[in-house]
Formats: sequence, structure tokens, C-alpha cells
Amino acid sequence: MNGCHFCENAGGEILWEDNRCRVVWAYEPDHPALCRVIWDRHVSEMADLEPADRDHIMRVVFAAERALVTVLKPDKMNLASLGNQVPHVHWHVIPRFRDDPHFPNPIWGQKLRATPRPLEAEFATHMRRTLDGLLKRRG
Amino acid sequence: MNGCHFCENAGGEILWEDNRCRVVWAYEPDHPALCRVIWDRHVSEMADLEPADRDHIMRVVFAAERALVTVLKPDKMNLASLGNQVPHVHWHVIPRFRDDPHFPNPIWGQKLRATPRPLEAEFATHMRRTLDGLLKRRG
Repeated sequence: MNGCHFCENAGGEILWEDNRCRVVWAYEPDHPALCRVIWDRHVSEMADLEPADRDHIMRVVFAAERALVTVLKPDKMNLASLGNQVPHVHWHVIPRFRDDPHFPNPIWGQKLRATPRPLEAEFATHMRRTLDGLLKRRG
Repeated sequence: MNGCHFCENAGGEILWEDNRCRVVWAYEPDHPALCRVIWDRHVSEMADLEPADRDHIMRVVFAAERALVTVLKPDKMNLASLGNQVPHVHWHVIPRFRDDPHFPNPIWGQKLRATPRPLEAEFATHMRRTLDGLLKRRG
């Protein structure tokens, strides 16, 4: 859709994709491992997806969650589909650490600590390998 | 679990429940229609649930989303599983309105407007009826 950020931009470095959605590494400075799962087609709400498509994107969201747990061993995982500013279905998949800038607040809440160092680029390689392994399997 | 808020409290008025999870009306003053879907057993992460349980809670989350859309016709729906403060699997299912206290910010972001009037208690009746209808169906 014209003027929609996620119709016009990948939204980060693509770690995995198929013909319906993509997992991107979003390079958010305060939460450098934040990934997003973005539905390719312009749809505003999860409730607007057909059940089979809804199940598909959730399978990818939970694979991204699992991959981040495997690669980074975070203290907590956060998942969110908001889209108030960009009403195009996308999920924030956010590994949280006790010393991250906002913990235990949501990443949209009050900032309590300094911005951390960026992740090394090897993160993307590890995530790609882990996602490929998880999403080849059924279930 | 001792000391866990959602092990020891329903978390609001129960709108629907089965033997695995419950949908509650949480009475959040700034977002009076906010509902939560809470897993009964103490589990910290979605990634810790068995795939069948994960699919079950998501079916209930999407039914709660659909029920809120049907009953309130919000401008946007927000879904989130965070649990940094209460690490017991629960989903926030939040109807958003352009004139709500935080829109377009996430509800955990900066507050921009006054707290709205509470919803009428009839909301619970409408939600119960809609959830019962949605969750009897398969899929």
C-alpha cells in the first residue's frame, strides 16, 4: 500500500522468509536483538487474516521466539502485535535482559539504563541457521 | 506458585474459562475494556508450552480479539505477551481508540489524554455471549 512503511521497506535485515512473511533483524539501538515478523501483504489486524494464515504467522513468531532463546538465552521474551503507528500486521519478538535499558518495563515504557553496545554481526548468521532448522520441521 | 499474582488471583472478572486458561475483564482504568487471557498453570514463557497448549491459548487470544472487535468496534487491536513483572503466561488483548489516553502510543508509553469513563457492566454480558459463540466453533 502506498505510504505504508512495511509495504515499502523490508524493515531490517531479512533472516528468514517464505512467500507469506519475513523475519527481520530490526537494529533497534536500545534492544539490538529485537526481531520482527512481518506479513508481506498489507493487512491491518490479526483478526483480518484467514485462520490458516494466522496459524502460519504464529508458527513463524514462535520459531523466532525459540531462535532468540536458543541464540541469546535472555531473561524473558516479549511478544507484541500493536500497529498503532503502522497498521500492517507485524510482531515484535524481543529478548529481554535484566540489564537492558527498560527492564522490567515494556520497551515502550520509561528508560532506566544506557543504550547497550550493538550486537556482533554473527548474530544474524546464528539466527538464520536456527530459524532454518526450526521452520523446516512441521508443528 | 507461591507469590505469583496470576497463580493466586483470577486477575479480573472471568468472562470465559476452560480447564486450561481463562479470559478476564481486567478493569484497567485507562483502558477499561482491556482483557487478559491467562494460562492457569504457572509457566513463564510461551516457548515453554507444548505446541498443542500454545495453539489452544492462541485460539482463545484470537477469540478474545474477535469478541472485542465485535462488541466495541475499536480503531485498532493490540496483543502482547510480556510478563517481565509477572512471569506467568498471560496475554493483554487491548482494544484501542483514537481518543484513548495513550493512542497512538502503546498503553505502556506516554499518556496523552485523560482517563475515560468506565465501561458499563453490560460489556461483560456482551463479551460472555460473544466468546461462548466463538469458542464453541472449531478453528
